[in-house]
Amino acid sequence: MQLSTKHLLGIKDISPADISLILSTAAQFKEVLQRPIKKVPSLRDVTIVNLFYENSTRTRMSFELAEKRLSADTINFAISSSSASKGETLLDTVNNILSMKVDMVVMRHYASGAPHFLSRHIPAAIINAGDGINEHPTQALLDAFSIQEKLGSLPGKKVVLIGDIMHSRVALSNIHLLKKMGAEVMVAGPPTLIPKYIGEAFQVKVEYDLKKALAWCDVANVLRIQLERQNQVLFSSLREYNLAYGVSKKLLDSLGKDIVIMHPGPINRGVEIDSDVADGSQSIILHQVENGVAVRMAVLYLLAGHALD
Amino acid sequence: MQLSTKHLLGIKDISPADISLILSTAAQFKEVLQRPIKKVPSLRDVTIVNLFYENSTRTRMSFELAEKRLSADTINFAISSSSASKGETLLDTVNNILSMKVDMVVMRHYASGAPHFLSRHIPAAIINAGDGINEHPTQALLDAFSIQEKLGSLPGKKVVLIGDIMHSRVALSNIHLLKKMGAEVMVAGPPTLIPKYIGEAFQVKVEYDLKKALAWCDVANVLRIQLERQNQVLFSSLREYNLAYGVSKKLLDSLGKDIVIMHPGPINRGVEIDSDVADGSQSIILHQVENGVAVRMAVLYLLAGHALD
Amino acid sequence: MQLSTKHLLGIKDISPADISLILSTAAQFKEVLQRPIKKVPSLRDVTIVNLFYENSTRTRMSFELAEKRLSADTINFAISSSSASKGETLLDTVNNILSMKVDMVVMRHYASGAPHFLSRHIPAAIINAGDGINEHPTQALLDAFSIQEKLGSLPGKKVVLIGDIMHSRVALSNIHLLKKMGAEVMVAGPPTLIPKYIGEAFQVKVEYDLKKALAWCDVANVLRIQLERQNQVLFSSLREYNLAYGVSKKLLDSLGKDIVIMHPGPINRGVEIDSDVADGSQSIILHQVENGVAVRMAVLYLLAGHALD
Repeated sequence: MQLSTKHLLGIKDISPADISLILSTAAQFKEVLQRPIKKVPSLRDVTIVNLFYENSTRTRMSFELAEKRLSADTINFAISSSSASKGETLLDTVNNILSMKVDMVVMRHYASGAPHFLSRHIPAAIINAGDGINEHPTQALLDAFSIQEKLGSLPGKKVVLIGDIMHSRVALSNIHLLKKMGAEVMVAGPPTLIPKYIGEAFQVKVEYDLKKALAWCDVANVLRIQLERQNQVLFSSLREYNLAYGVSKKLLDSLGKDIVIMHPGPINRGVEIDSDVADGSQSIILHQVENGVAVRMAVLYLLAGHALD
Repeated sequence: MQLSTKHLLGIKDISPADISLILSTAAQFKEVLQRPIKKVPSLRDVTIVNLFYENSTRTRMSFELAEKRLSADTINFAISSSSASKGETLLDTVNNILSMKVDMVVMRHYASGAPHFLSRHIPAAIINAGDGINEHPTQALLDAFSIQEKLGSLPGKKVVLIGDIMHSRVALSNIHLLKKMGAEVMVAGPPTLIPKYIGEAFQVKVEYDLKKALAWCDVANVLRIQLERQNQVLFSSLREYNLAYGVSKKLLDSLGKDIVIMHPGPINRGVEIDSDVADGSQSIILHQVENGVAVRMAVLYLLAGHALD
Repeated sequence: MQLSTKHLLGIKDISPADISLILSTAAQFKEVLQRPIKKVPSLRDVTIVNLFYENSTRTRMSFELAEKRLSADTINFAISSSSASKGETLLDTVNNILSMKVDMVVMRHYASGAPHFLSRHIPAAIINAGDGINEHPTQALLDAFSIQEKLGSLPGKKVVLIGDIMHSRVALSNIHLLKKMGAEVMVAGPPTLIPKYIGEAFQVKVEYDLKKALAWCDVANVLRIQLERQNQVLFSSLREYNLAYGVSKKLLDSLGKDIVIMHPGPINRGVEIDSDVADGSQSIILHQVENGVAVRMAVLYLLAGHALD
């Protein structure tokens, strides 16, 4: 089986069949990761560059581990130690890298659409590891994998995304993926952080009351409030955000049912999620991280099939 | 033979038998490092993260080389390119890393006790590569290995630690180790840089006169003056420090005996040590660096025995 | 065949026979890089440190790829995460690294002559990856390789170097190499950026008129204007520089002949070179990048012969 796409730019443009193939391949790699010897020789002669124009811990590390467990050769290239400050265009940077016979590019960029632009100009396989406020497809894939693992399947499951929907690439990729795979989707948060058009545009429910949102759902995916770009205009303070939209044990206990708790990390404890929820029995947050490596191995492995043709 | 500990958090909490096992294992790895082929397959399926919350050249590089020569997979994670600035807790960061199936964590942190805290919450083996002003156990181990290599054994040897005893994790780890192994220990330096209680607390001699200290000892371990956090209150100037506590050729020649000169690096030539001493025939400074790789290989190898059980 | 030198410090001090040996060895490695499996086991037990005291994308990455394709173990050491800020001398830093049994040092330093100084004090093989405004020998070698590949040979070929000759280590290394190998060399640019003595000192032609320079040459190697250290005294503005010395399609079309276009990168499009020239059919800029990996493999491979003796 092969993907019908050469790149993974976003969830928006891939088919449900491709998503299913990635998820089932990830399940096989997850088995590999439980073994004492977690390494397979699949990409032994593939060279992959991790091109990060934005800081990242878990995503970069997750990709790097996925690459190493597939036996690929990896090169890290972070903006701070790069020529980007010298005024070179993105396309020139990448063309230079590819001239060195690199097979695949894992790329995070602060500009929405940067990997899409590149994919029209270069032959190598591109994996979007997050572009601006657009998409973060491998995060949505690992989230879907984790829901499926916990609840058995995606179709008909009710998933609410909570928080800053407006600026979240995780939210957008999740909405695309969950809708494609037949789940029901709601977005919840303060009106200032939810785009006005979103209900009609994506056929998702919109809810401004956190308790109602939680009462409706099977799964709550709690998004991170970006402290580093906290916008005073959008909500008044972290404390007020926590009071109105922080997911607390008390609130969950009041629902009379168990819902699955997810978070893409890094967590702000006491802001969007309380510690006893993040660490509680219904939380699958650390499974998401674990599954991330398996999902990324699957994406790299499947795209390499094209890259090496 | 196995270590009786799962982690290497500090010298304070490990037994003389564990120290002896590490030193004798290091001797075997030192032999390996003399061969044309310096690599052994011992940790071929082990993944190790180097988690550095403080800058470091030699310690990080020494660990990375030790890991590569044991054939481990290594991931580097430095604070500057990390999520730490995003407000994630240390425990969350490390739990995330471990969810990615990392077997061992080599960790340097600016907070004293950070690795000890972690060891109570995570299952992976932790190696402390320096925590605040507390301990730097692999440095003390390589120092002991180097003394033993030069003088044949540790029991009864007279070792003086010279300089900023107050803020030095190297000093504290050395005191613990040397006392446990039967050496005699003295600390020397200006009164402002030597904790008041230290003589009684650790059963070490205290000496404020450098010449007397050198006349007493077999080995002088000269500590680095931290230029980057030079505290004007503690001594008046680098020049005055050098006049009173700088180890010079002239001073050494006046002793009428040869003593072994050590320094954990990086050296401030002309401050705590003069160039003709650092480069002189009694200096084993570069042997310390060489032995550091062998000692770290031994620690990683022995702890992996537990980690892989 | 072996090189007659232990280090590659600059082109100035190596023989035409050594240059020929490097270029012919590079041709063999270029063949390797066209294969599906681009890796050879030649340096399997060699440890190489990439010691970069200046930012670099392509040079560091090109060396790292060359090392990995030769199966060497590599350690990266960049100034920002180093002890250099702690006041350690360059010689101490490198001696420390070598005590850890590193076989070869690839080094970029902001100070002209830094690798030459080191080579007089340390036993390991040193490869200069750029020192201040002095030399960048592997760049000149890959430029020569690329010219030879395009035009068949070097003797008698007319090469013009265009731009900031005064501050360019690429220009100096190119002049040395091209003269040694029998090519004719011209330098062109504004008088403020061309050293006064250069014609007599190096037996090169000097031309201040870009059109005349291009009319004379077979190959134009267009140098980068360093935006980050743009010196207002030396020329008035980037726009004026472009008008007088920017290589444009229109200008090339007016020559009535095809010349080969080169650039060491990163490119400032619209400053020293226009986009339709950089991307045009006569440009071999991306071949230069590709050849860089093969040339660096050759240098590392040939010097390792000495390093491992």
